Amino acid sequence: MSAVSAASAVTSVRIRRSRILDVMHSGESLRGGAVHARAGVRPVDVAAGLPDDDVLPYARIGAAFADALRSHESLTYPSPYGLRPLREIIARRRGVPVESVIVTNGAMGGIFLSMMAVADPGDVVLAEDPSFPQWAGTFRRFGVHVEGVGLTDEGIDVDEVERRLAAGRRYAAIYTIPDFQNPTGRVSSGRVKRRLVEVADRYGVPVIADNPYRELWFSREPAEFPQEARGASGSPLLEIGSFSKWLGPGLRVGWLIADPALASRIAEYRLAVDGGVSAVTQAALVSMLSDERWTDDLLAHERRVYAGKAMALMGALEDRLDGDIDVVRPQGGYFLWARLPRWLRVEDDAVARELAVEGVNPLGGEAFFLAGGVRGRSCSGVHAAYARFSFAHASRDDLVEGAARLGSVARRLRPAGI
Amino acid sequence: MSAVSAASAVTSVRIRRSRILDVMHSGESLRGGAVHARAGVRPVDVAAGLPDDDVLPYARIGAAFADALRSHESLTYPSPYGLRPLREIIARRRGVPVESVIVTNGAMGGIFLSMMAVADPGDVVLAEDPSFPQWAGTFRRFGVHVEGVGLTDEGIDVDEVERRLAAGRRYAAIYTIPDFQNPTGRVSSGRVKRRLVEVADRYGVPVIADNPYRELWFSREPAEFPQEARGASGSPLLEIGSFSKWLGPGLRVGWLIADPALASRIAEYRLAVDGGVSAVTQAALVSMLSDERWTDDLLAHERRVYAGKAMALMGALEDRLDGDIDVVRPQGGYFLWARLPRWLRVEDDAVARELAVEGVNPLGGEAFFLAGGVRGRSCSGVHAAYARFSFAHASRDDLVEGAARLGSVARRLRPAGI
Repeated sequence: MSAVSAASAVTSVRIRRSRILDVMHSGESLRGGAVHARAGVRPVDVAAGLPDDDVLPYARIGAAFADALRSHESLTYPSPYGLRPLREIIARRRGVPVESVIVTNGAMGGIFLSMMAVADPGDVVLAEDPSFPQWAGTFRRFGVHVEGVGLTDEGIDVDEVERRLAAGRRYAAIYTIPDFQNPTGRVSSGRVKRRLVEVADRYGVPVIADNPYRELWFSREPAEFPQEARGASGSPLLEIGSFSKWLGPGLRVGWLIADPALASRIAEYRLAVDGGVSAVTQAALVSMLSDERWTDDLLAHERRVYAGKAMALMGALEDRLDGDIDVVRPQGGYFLWARLPRWLRVEDDAVARELAVEGVNPLGGEAFFLAGGVRGRSCSGVHAAYARFSFAHASRDDLVEGAARLGSVARRLRPAGI
Repeated sequence: MSAVSAASAVTSVRIRRSRILDVMHSGESLRGGAVHARAGVRPVDVAAGLPDDDVLPYARIGAAFADALRSHESLTYPSPYGLRPLREIIARRRGVPVESVIVTNGAMGGIFLSMMAVADPGDVVLAEDPSFPQWAGTFRRFGVHVEGVGLTDEGIDVDEVERRLAAGRRYAAIYTIPDFQNPTGRVSSGRVKRRLVEVADRYGVPVIADNPYRELWFSREPAEFPQEARGASGSPLLEIGSFSKWLGPGLRVGWLIADPALASRIAEYRLAVDGGVSAVTQAALVSMLSDERWTDDLLAHERRVYAGKAMALMGALEDRLDGDIDVVRPQGGYFLWARLPRWLRVEDDAVARELAVEGVNPLGGEAFFLAGGVRGRSCSGVHAAYARFSFAHASRDDLVEGAARLGSVARRLRPAGI
């Protein structure tokens, strides 16, 4: 065939795609977060799950990278487990054996590797509902089904988990965001964490504890999972953490803590997935985090900043939407979860239009319910709606301003007689 | 259950592993490369597929990272396609549309994403044989079978590829390392590249062209695949490249060039795999590579250095093993492939022992044959063996010394009467 006929042939045939690619595309993604404000209105972004630019130590991170490049190690192939000194730092900070720690491409990399390790297409994963939709999208795109279970004030409804397991339901894993849950901000109690591991262990089901917000507690560090299960041989517990929320998601570095034998298998196959995590970035993290005093000071500062912003947003929302909002008081992390009256449902076109006019963008709660739709019912006597506000990225003034704008929307939309 | 009984239960049950994890573990890994020299002998490493530390621009890379951290963009979530300015640089350097470019976690990340896009467990991928075992391990661990086809002086045996397709064989993809092939150093001619795309297109089979060494040509840049197929809509060609071989594997940055519609689907599902490539590292690469003069000078320098080392090693091997070695003259990349007489087979215990005593470590060729074992037969009238030498990492003096040591081994092992 001549070059010319080859060229024409090139556009004539669509290559076959894998079933996996098709399955992955059938899942949904988290959308939204764009702020479309009317002309002249400065947008206030309360959707983005991004850190406060003012607390990230850009200069120190830049210096750490320059420092990392002083060693030839930084440009060579990384170990599939991650750089030993970084694993040691993570192990020390998290109080687990170093052999149980794998460095991952952010928490997302840890979720993907965990999923590959414990689930097959067609399996079912159980998770608290509502939850962050992106991880569920990952599982669903891989052909794994996601089933919801309730969330109590103490975390995942472990009694219901046990009932379903006792009734013979089979799960490839139980997925939970134990601390400052996304989107509800809830914290699993020590009792729930203990019971969850105990039940999971009894039924031989892995627990994937995705915990990127844990370091950002406000007044009290949440309880740990039982120490004897953390990074221990035979333990069903896989803990996922990340530097994204307090050093910046652009680094793409997180970690996975698992039974060392499982960690070793995951480390081996992850070479086939990504070749390991950037050695440069790992070395830069070692350079920074070896200074424990600096690390502790940074985290203490971030906790104060985020606590202050969370309280400012909560106070402003309660002030401006008096009686029309029911807020879960944030104890850490990035998010405030609120119940709103049905006529302030963010997903409704009329509400969305008003919010766009005001230039403020809480995320409607329905995208966070695993099966779609809202379970909650009553607020001020009418059917309820939910919304997630991020207090992390916007400035404190903007958060207060955003609450005021939501108050204006509420005043305009309030039905007569309420 | 009390905390104590929960603790004892934790070690009593092994969690179920996924079938994928089991499949992934059934594949082999590339081993070897450790040099066990006798006491007092300085090891000479000719196994490592690593760059020359002396050519990597450590200080410039360090400065580029510090520069990247001056922008807040560097610490935010990266686009799943990669940073637009980096995609533009790659597109310009490779002469393809920017829409066809995705930034990946090294070439390995590109191979994994390609595999996920075109192959399912149970499928067969066709590849030139011998080849680099790690990619084949990735496919096999994912349950994809790998079938070999011969390699000619011009690259993959495209006539045989066509015969098998015409005979009704079905392949999920044809995988090839077109330029400075690992391990043989062979370069696919323009004719073979054209024919391969034409045949692949005719049968609707994707071609995965894994090309991490391409930039490191010595005297002549290899032919490109037909321009009309490169990053073009409907094209069966997926090209994979990497910064690893000329800026350092520790960066973990490579790229994938594909039909823009396919690239877009891959970009979307890769969010579920790794959340994208480090924004910091991408920004640092933009900072460096925006200086085209600097980039071109660096590559010109590296080409000169590697060409000089390749010729030094080839000359020394031919000199020290006169008549006992048949070398494929390297035209670029990192590796020299050589045929040795059967009594110098690196995999044999007696030879391995002598090499260890001398502290030099060519990789035995058999690990590179996809089905295991060696196809080649005659060299100096006896059955042949193969070995791969890396000339990239060791110093020029060490390469010459390594050849001398291999010569000593040959003198000691040469059977009487040859």
